[in-house]
Amino acid sequence: MTAPAARRGRPRSEDADERILQAAHELLLQRGYDRFAMDEAAVRAGVAKTTLYRRWPTKDHLLVALVAKIQDEVPVADTGDVRRDLVVYLTAVAGGLNRMRRVGRTAGDDPSAGVVAELVAAAARHPDVGEAVRALFARRNTLPLALLDRARERGELRADSSSAVLFDQLAGALYYRLLVTGEPIGPAYVAELVDQVLAGAGTATPNPERT
Amino acid sequence: MTAPAARRGRPRSEDADERILQAAHELLLQRGYDRFAMDEAAVRAGVAKTTLYRRWPTKDHLLVALVAKIQDEVPVADTGDVRRDLVVYLTAVAGGLNRMRRVGRTAGDDPSAGVVAELVAAAARHPDVGEAVRALFARRNTLPLALLDRARERGELRADSSSAVLFDQLAGALYYRLLVTGEPIGPAYVAELVDQVLAGAGTATPNPERT
Repeated sequence: MTAPAARRGRPRSEDADERILQAAHELLLQRGYDRFAMDEAAVRAGVAKTTLYRRWPTKDHLLVALVAKIQDEVPVADTGDVRRDLVVYLTAVAGGLNRMRRVGRTAGDDPSAGVVAELVAAAARHPDVGEAVRALFARRNTLPLALLDRARERGELRADSSSAVLFDQLAGALYYRLLVTGEPIGPAYVAELVDQVLAGAGTATPNPERT
Repeated sequence: MTAPAARRGRPRSEDADERILQAAHELLLQRGYDRFAMDEAAVRAGVAKTTLYRRWPTKDHLLVALVAKIQDEVPVADTGDVRRDLVVYLTAVAGGLNRMRRVGRTAGDDPSAGVVAELVAAAARHPDVGEAVRALFARRNTLPLALLDRARERGELRADSSSAVLFDQLAGALYYRLLVTGEPIGPAYVAELVDQVLAGAGTATPNPERT
């Protein structure tokens, strides 16, 4: 990640990581979570099993890293129009979640959450996986949270609003539909969600201290 | 559920269901999801294993029914003040989720989601469990959704707001924290969430067609 290393090209271990994650992604799309096998991922990536297991001791650890990589490929653009930026970003997030929902499944299967649900359960079951998942989201969410902070500085968001709560309202709605109710999270839903989150649902100021 | 049956007392099968769910609840609190055993639940409830398995073929099916029972014990009061009603209801929901988070765990364990996460994964893995979970939430959520519809009729909610989207923002934020980020969902958070959902985070009307 330092400038000299970048000039010399990436270290071999980083290349191996990249190859493993690429192979894991292809394998996940074909097999789904249940039938995803670590040994097959190593063969497909062309690395020794020991290399794979030293880096990621279980399937869950590897898949957390893969989800991190997929999330990092979703851009967070700041055009100065918070509504538009949120719709674009959340539509991309929802698209990624929908692909995860379909991973390893055939048409006609139930509209469930697949990989994300398995990771959520692994995070609850194994403290180190839980820590990795929480660190992943904490790191990743700094980008949309900074977007919201800048929108507030520009005066697009109420001075007394909380970026963290706002992001929970948005991301939470998508994950709740994905993981719990199974309702669709397409572009029309995302636009309606962003509009309602920004405009508010209430007619009265609910707390006299709020301006 | 009919009046004559109620006068004669509940049928035996309903008593058995009730005893099984009570025993399952106690067992879950002691053992957690991983070490919850169907056979032990049958012994503790004083029913034959065949009775238990005929009613609920797997641990996941039994635990969906148990979560339904626990949810049904959370009252949805309508006092005519939607902010207050939402804070009371969601604080109770969050309390239930926090107890689930701790189920079967000892102090010092990671702050993960436990039973709810396992059910979410089971719902994604097994189509019939998924169907049961989605039916459970669809049935249960009719109560808070009706509360929101009545508040709109009273003029407490914007005419152009959607109860479904509003509920996703509220419940979604709680489940997102529980299942993904591991952030706390205490009473102070619930109150802040409800205020921001009602007041909105934006300063401008994001869509000219909205009033």
